[in-house]
Amino acid sequence: MKFKNYPMVSRVVFGRGSFNQLEEILATKRNGINAPFIYYVDDVFKGNHWLTSRIKLSYKDKIIYVPTSKEPSTDQIDKLVEDLILEYSELPSGIIGIGGGIVLDISKAVSLMLTNKGESKDYQGWDLIKQPSLYHVGIPTLSGTGAEVSRTTILTGPVRKLGINSDYTPFDQVILDPELTKDVPKDQWFFTGMDCYIHCIESLTGTYLNAFSQSYGEKALELCKEIFLEDTLSREESQDKLMMASWHGGMSIAYSQVGVAHAMSYGLGYLLGIKHGVGNCIVFDHLEEYYPEGVAIFKQMKAKHNIQIPQGICTNLDEDQFDKMIDVALSLEPLWENAIGKNWKTIITRQKLLDLYKKM
Amino acid sequence: MKFKNYPMVSRVVFGRGSFNQLEEILATKRNGINAPFIYYVDDVFKGNHWLTSRIKLSYKDKIIYVPTSKEPSTDQIDKLVEDLILEYSELPSGIIGIGGGIVLDISKAVSLMLTNKGESKDYQGWDLIKQPSLYHVGIPTLSGTGAEVSRTTILTGPVRKLGINSDYTPFDQVILDPELTKDVPKDQWFFTGMDCYIHCIESLTGTYLNAFSQSYGEKALELCKEIFLEDTLSREESQDKLMMASWHGGMSIAYSQVGVAHAMSYGLGYLLGIKHGVGNCIVFDHLEEYYPEGVAIFKQMKAKHNIQIPQGICTNLDEDQFDKMIDVALSLEPLWENAIGKNWKTIITRQKLLDLYKKM
Repeated sequence: MKFKNYPMVSRVVFGRGSFNQLEEILATKRNGINAPFIYYVDDVFKGNHWLTSRIKLSYKDKIIYVPTSKEPSTDQIDKLVEDLILEYSELPSGIIGIGGGIVLDISKAVSLMLTNKGESKDYQGWDLIKQPSLYHVGIPTLSGTGAEVSRTTILTGPVRKLGINSDYTPFDQVILDPELTKDVPKDQWFFTGMDCYIHCIESLTGTYLNAFSQSYGEKALELCKEIFLEDTLSREESQDKLMMASWHGGMSIAYSQVGVAHAMSYGLGYLLGIKHGVGNCIVFDHLEEYYPEGVAIFKQMKAKHNIQIPQGICTNLDEDQFDKMIDVALSLEPLWENAIGKNWKTIITRQKLLDLYKKM
Repeated sequence: MKFKNYPMVSRVVFGRGSFNQLEEILATKRNGINAPFIYYVDDVFKGNHWLTSRIKLSYKDKIIYVPTSKEPSTDQIDKLVEDLILEYSELPSGIIGIGGGIVLDISKAVSLMLTNKGESKDYQGWDLIKQPSLYHVGIPTLSGTGAEVSRTTILTGPVRKLGINSDYTPFDQVILDPELTKDVPKDQWFFTGMDCYIHCIESLTGTYLNAFSQSYGEKALELCKEIFLEDTLSREESQDKLMMASWHGGMSIAYSQVGVAHAMSYGLGYLLGIKHGVGNCIVFDHLEEYYPEGVAIFKQMKAKHNIQIPQGICTNLDEDQFDKMIDVALSLEPLWENAIGKNWKTIITRQKLLDLYKKM
């Protein structure tokens, strides 16, 4: 048996207000006046001076606002990379992502593609990246996806939705400032938090689990339950703890895998552009057969926070469309093997997935 | 408020048997035939072919067995560094520590002192190291100290027992193979495990605590309770989980601190050479006033495993000796501030520490 040599985030700052330390952290990383820092910032912060006034631009540094209505695509990454290469005479000193999982994944992907030739679609998969990435910093403003700590960056490509999984993907620096999550709308807070909850359930019940991933997954799950089921936490404590749940949840995947909800959610994302957090919730709501206890608690959380999960999104799909979603879902073999075991192909049939998708 | 920018271990492998991957991991790190890998190995493994036959020596690579009857000293580090400089024409390609906290701390200190001029005693403290260390790998064969993940290396110097705390101290690579802990004698297993337990109690009840350290500390504490109080785990599961408890316990110190037991145990270590794990137990057994719940559970664990804590070690000390221990303990100001608060000097008197030491 071969064990993964897991690359960790190099440095982490944690604390309310720690975002103010960004300038100092970057000061030693500048490669010259023609090598800018590029800030990808979730466009929800456009005009938000509380945040943007704390980003200090020098020389050719630039803020690029990123719309987050859609999950990142390989075309989008290639375009962002090309824009930087055309605009600047030198490679950037670093890429800083400030936002949720979409912005963090874009930042990771751009920092990889600036030093690896060709198109990003050719790197979707495992360990296809050969060159170290540019220095890149992740600053989550949403908590749950675990994108701040993971070795993947999930992209929708021409053929499939799949991450660029590599040793160079993790951030060189993460700043965990829970205060940055203070204005997240309730639905988004719930869906993103459930991304963490669901990947903990998938990891902890999976066949790939070991004591490393179990310890991280159990802690993240415990934090999720405290945040989403109990009434004991202040608003600030809840923000702090959800940021840690996301971090530990991301680490819990190091030696494990996600499962059925993620596989099927990738199908929804690919075909319908359904975003990852809400997609996971749409799917997970119907997975009692695979995760009975996890789904029961999920339904409690949903009821407690009065969250409406979108219904009927597959009502008007035709057979080809269902086929496409099923193809995408089934292509994620490690997820199915983790969820069901080595014999998963005898258990997970196309009909079974079709029946599930039709309920959504 | 300024938050620490915490340096993490760069890479980690976890798994039973993962020690076999060491050769492959080192293969890309060799700087030439005159730049050896130096293996510091706990001398308990001398003649243990199960372990040593898996260390593949090439060119000028060397195994140096390290006696672990005493905690590491600054003199010892300086001597080990000098030996390497005299013996080889080039700096080593890397330092690999295989053992408990003593061997791991020696490996970290040597890798720092090979690239930083002068004597190691001059670097005891916080952030005095200016040059990156040599590539260094930590492979724990005991679980509890957290030395595999921390940014310190504790040394007994001419003036005090204090760590070299720096951003370059953490290992570049850690291999967590719980199988390596299979032959640890019971007393040592207990004392080292209690090192983890005690620093979790100190961290979780401290005034420095935040959500980052709390989440790691709570998980480590939970694992310690499962291992030392319950009867539900197999031998292998218990080894796996103690290795993770140590890892998370070490991380829980990132944004917090240890407390009374560690401060006083450093005094015992400095004057009497009492080893860290057992020293913590000797002290903690008398700290009901500061950690009532933690000490009660500690006494349960001690009884369950029928462990005898050494008694009467301070019986024959004279006043000067007590004074010296109290000086060492009181010099560790961040530990007292964490344990008691900013006003700790009004609460912790020399008489109070004298009375406590006299009970031990």
